[in-house]
Amino acid sequence: MSDDLRMTEAELMQLAVDFLTAQGLERGHATSMASVLCAAQRDGSLSHGLQRLPGTRDTIGHPAFQKAPQLRVEQVTPAVLKVDADYGFAVHATMSALPQLIASAKALGIAFMAVRNGFHSTALWPVVEALAEAGLVGLSMNPTHDWVVPAGGTKPVLGTNPMAFAWPRPGQPPYVFDFATTAAARADIAMARNEGRAIPEGWGLDPEGQPTTDPAAVLAGAMLPFGGHKGSALATMIELMAGPMIGGLTSAASARFDEGHKAAPCHAELVIAIDPKLLSDPSDEAAAEAMLGAISGQGARLPGARRHGLRDVHQRDGIPLRHALYEQILAGIAGR
Amino acid sequence: MSDDLRMTEAELMQLAVDFLTAQGLERGHATSMASVLCAAQRDGSLSHGLQRLPGTRDTIGHPAFQKAPQLRVEQVTPAVLKVDADYGFAVHATMSALPQLIASAKALGIAFMAVRNGFHSTALWPVVEALAEAGLVGLSMNPTHDWVVPAGGTKPVLGTNPMAFAWPRPGQPPYVFDFATTAAARADIAMARNEGRAIPEGWGLDPEGQPTTDPAAVLAGAMLPFGGHKGSALATMIELMAGPMIGGLTSAASARFDEGHKAAPCHAELVIAIDPKLLSDPSDEAAAEAMLGAISGQGARLPGARRHGLRDVHQRDGIPLRHALYEQILAGIAGR
Repeated sequence: MSDDLRMTEAELMQLAVDFLTAQGLERGHATSMASVLCAAQRDGSLSHGLQRLPGTRDTIGHPAFQKAPQLRVEQVTPAVLKVDADYGFAVHATMSALPQLIASAKALGIAFMAVRNGFHSTALWPVVEALAEAGLVGLSMNPTHDWVVPAGGTKPVLGTNPMAFAWPRPGQPPYVFDFATTAAARADIAMARNEGRAIPEGWGLDPEGQPTTDPAAVLAGAMLPFGGHKGSALATMIELMAGPMIGGLTSAASARFDEGHKAAPCHAELVIAIDPKLLSDPSDEAAAEAMLGAISGQGARLPGARRHGLRDVHQRDGIPLRHALYEQILAGIAGR
Repeated sequence: MSDDLRMTEAELMQLAVDFLTAQGLERGHATSMASVLCAAQRDGSLSHGLQRLPGTRDTIGHPAFQKAPQLRVEQVTPAVLKVDADYGFAVHATMSALPQLIASAKALGIAFMAVRNGFHSTALWPVVEALAEAGLVGLSMNPTHDWVVPAGGTKPVLGTNPMAFAWPRPGQPPYVFDFATTAAARADIAMARNEGRAIPEGWGLDPEGQPTTDPAAVLAGAMLPFGGHKGSALATMIELMAGPMIGGLTSAASARFDEGHKAAPCHAELVIAIDPKLLSDPSDEAAAEAMLGAISGQGARLPGARRHGLRDVHQRDGIPLRHALYEQILAGIAGR
């Protein structure tokens, strides 16, 4: 790790905002996107960290992309928010409207937000963690592009369709997960290809629909869902709930919309918030703690725990950033 | 199949209601429970069908069980219903309050119902299918008993924690799934034990926390979640959302509540209903149909499709019922 720079969160944010404003993004828009990438970098979640920054140029270059999007937030019912991201980065719309979602959920016990016409939802855990920090249970999901074959099939239909969930815990970070509904992450398959390694069986099919351990064949063919027909059913649910249910594109339609620009997916995102205090009392909170403690107490790691641990370390010792990536970002700021 | 009786749905219902009222259940209570068991039998979902009827006596025999429960439905907010099943069968409370949940979801776009203090949620698909018939998207889940080890652990903490989802489709049965978040159904493991068969690796651990293919060792030890750490995370989410979030028991607490009576779990059930028309237009419905058609069109079976197919056949030709089970039910009606 001696090759890494160490930066404070503020320095990292400055760097990321400078990069994005150098690409022409309006400052608030740049700040929203920078904040989720920096949060991932801070937590050691490198695949969703600042290494995504250079690639944002492909997305920003999509003809539909808006550098200064005009967000439109409509309270459709007291429990439903419709947010138009106006073809900027989705997270800008999501984070901007989150206080209104929180207010609705606290007033009614449950509310949801449909963020439409946004590019690249990035990691979903920052959104659900923000809900948990407000004392709410958060659930979020989105379609992506149709890279994934349904269980029992041979042709891709579904997206990698991530789902994130957060549960607020007293005096410590929330219970939180954020996973793609695929057997493996697309980034891990690409890394295996770049390093000339075979991948395990069960990660994907080749373009003829046959099982393969060749990562290049899977990237040209189709990824497989996690957990067989159950994971496939869940991915289909996400496709429906965060797509047509809220007026958003399916993963197939999102891929068509890209028209070969290699932008990150333009899609909708569903965020559901629930107030866990409404129907519970302190004994319920204690029962939840006992259940989570029975998991971590036997050495079975809770999802999110590694990330929260690295967050503490990096906030104390500085956030690592690879020199080569730093130079690449500086070049982007300088317009090279 | 020549050993099977063939019955109409009305005959099957009469039989099941007679059995349950013979055990002392109030008629409406008996009818609610009979209707879900008969629906499963009608759809060829035998594990949740009338074979569950004889075992209901263990649940009815639990000292807390109420044969004539006094349901209490409280509209806590315009979007949240709290339903006290008063220690009868959960499905009686769920189905009784469903029209009020439907009205809330249609008024606000989203609503949820917390059904508490009910025994034996049975299959969840009849509930979410009923929501789909009303034009709503349905999502339901519940904890059970702590038979399941978290991924990476050796000691059971989680329930088999099923989750069901339904999406209304124009002119045909809904897209619907209902699965336990375990690698295999507990009933399938018990069947393997009864038939002296080994089970596949990955279904469970023995009482020492070691992998095993011995079904008896798994039943004495712990079941494994489906899909590794992702399935485990999902099971934990269900534990939280359908337990402490709504003032219900965790799977561990539900098992303690049983006190060795071998009753079906006494637990809470979460039912979320969403109006898919609120933010969508006919082109979204068409996109959803295209996506589902791309799955079934390549021969990858949609969950629920086999059940809906058998429903059609059995409604035409009669619903099969094994002679031995029929005799056992008649004996129960006669008080033997």
